[in-house]
Amino acid sequence: MNKNAGDNLIAKDRFAEYIGLELVHVQSGYALARMEIKDYHLNGVNVVQGGALFTLADYTFAAAANADGIVTLSIDAHISYFKPPQGRLLTAEAREISAGRRLCHYQVDIFDENREQVARFTATGYKKR
Amino acid sequence: MNKNAGDNLIAKDRFAEYIGLELVHVQSGYALARMEIKDYHLNGVNVVQGGALFTLADYTFAAAANADGIVTLSIDAHISYFKPPQGRLLTAEAREISAGRRLCHYQVDIFDENREQVARFTATGYKKR
Amino acid sequence: MNKNAGDNLIAKDRFAEYIGLELVHVQSGYALARMEIKDYHLNGVNVVQGGALFTLADYTFAAAANADGIVTLSIDAHISYFKPPQGRLLTAEAREISAGRRLCHYQVDIFDENREQVARFTATGYKKR
Amino acid sequence: MNKNAGDNLIAKDRFAEYIGLELVHVQSGYALARMEIKDYHLNGVNVVQGGALFTLADYTFAAAANADGIVTLSIDAHISYFKPPQGRLLTAEAREISAGRRLCHYQVDIFDENREQVARFTATGYKKR
Repeated sequence: MNKNAGDNLIAKDRFAEYIGLELVHVQSGYALARMEIKDYHLNGVNVVQGGALFTLADYTFAAAANADGIVTLSIDAHISYFKPPQGRLLTAEAREISAGRRLCHYQVDIFDENREQVARFTATGYKKR
Repeated sequence: MNKNAGDNLIAKDRFAEYIGLELVHVQSGYALARMEIKDYHLNGVNVVQGGALFTLADYTFAAAANADGIVTLSIDAHISYFKPPQGRLLTAEAREISAGRRLCHYQVDIFDENREQVARFTATGYKKR
Repeated sequence: MNKNAGDNLIAKDRFAEYIGLELVHVQSGYALARMEIKDYHLNGVNVVQGGALFTLADYTFAAAANADGIVTLSIDAHISYFKPPQGRLLTAEAREISAGRRLCHYQVDIFDENREQVARFTATGYKKR
Repeated sequence: MNKNAGDNLIAKDRFAEYIGLELVHVQSGYALARMEIKDYHLNGVNVVQGGALFTLADYTFAAAANADGIVTLSIDAHISYFKPPQGRLLTAEAREISAGRRLCHYQVDIFDENREQVARFTATGYKKR
């Protein structure tokens, strides 16, 4: 795979587009994304569904981890939910915690419109060299 | 909250509907769901996006954990990805591993059309008594 | 590294010896171990410390994952605690859930003397080929 | 339970003492601990055993989470290993990420003697009110 592969992985992600994720800023080891909350993001008690939060975090992680052009696949991911989001906008910020030749570790923090943290996501990536 | 709350949480989940999840069987402590893979589930390299797999697992867990009518919220969840799914249909099977008065633990196994396991999800739920 | 490396990793593990872990059965992809509960395993409220449970699970996983002689390192691990153990003996059972060329996934279930499950551990290993 | 229970949980932890953990600083929501690496902490290839790293992190988390005197039990914990530690001293720093009435979330970062981060631990606690 090459740099284009890493770029396409993110730029042509149809699921991210389908659920309305928007990348705000991407650089190697860091990404910022956001999601405007729509009715279709909600569960049966009108709270943003856990899967929508996870997908926002996972996509932000993938954007940061693939920014250097080496395809990075998720091995595993963990999410902790802190509180239901308030307002209509979610922001996710991905940061590299550690990176080796093959493996990298990221944390993603998700904030609501009041800048309250609503979830923490961590993931391990595997670089396909 | 009451039994209807637990039922609505699942039955009226708009995100699950939006991404095409279908419950096949639900009973207390167990649920089976499936997702027919559509183009909008794919990432930029034509593999089902991790967020779609997670959402399928999380919804199946929620269906099983709320089946007794007591609203159960996710505290945290962990997913490990094993291999890219083959074929067009994913199946998820949620099973209670342990349950106390307040907390419960589930595992969800995701299989592709060839009955190969593609991911394992575990989650902790908190019962709102 | 070679087969001896994989063997030594387990057989010469001083921490496992220090805290009293005993392998009962090991084969490729499966291991059974046990720990007789001593006073030094307890926390300040007389319950087996989480770190002791984790170490028992991690060592059982490592024994199973290294049984084929290829050195397998832990990438990450997750443990969920279900209930305080009763009695004086803990048993841990490690099973491979999935294995590829580089990565493998295991679950370890820990039981107390009454055969009640007290914890579930999952881990991802990386094979140093 | 009362303040003394929370204090005893940490101060009288025999496993922490047995493996040589030392609390350096504790306040509500924060703790710093260290472990001088001894031969008995090593696995069969002379690297600090994962269970020893986990126990250091878990104890540091427990000290921070119990510092307000309300007994906090671990529900689950996740550890990612970044690199083998260098030198003879490990330091762990626990920080509250989020806390509600019943649940709290912590991260613990473990550093080696060169101040390189060797692992990241996250845990969810349940407050026994």
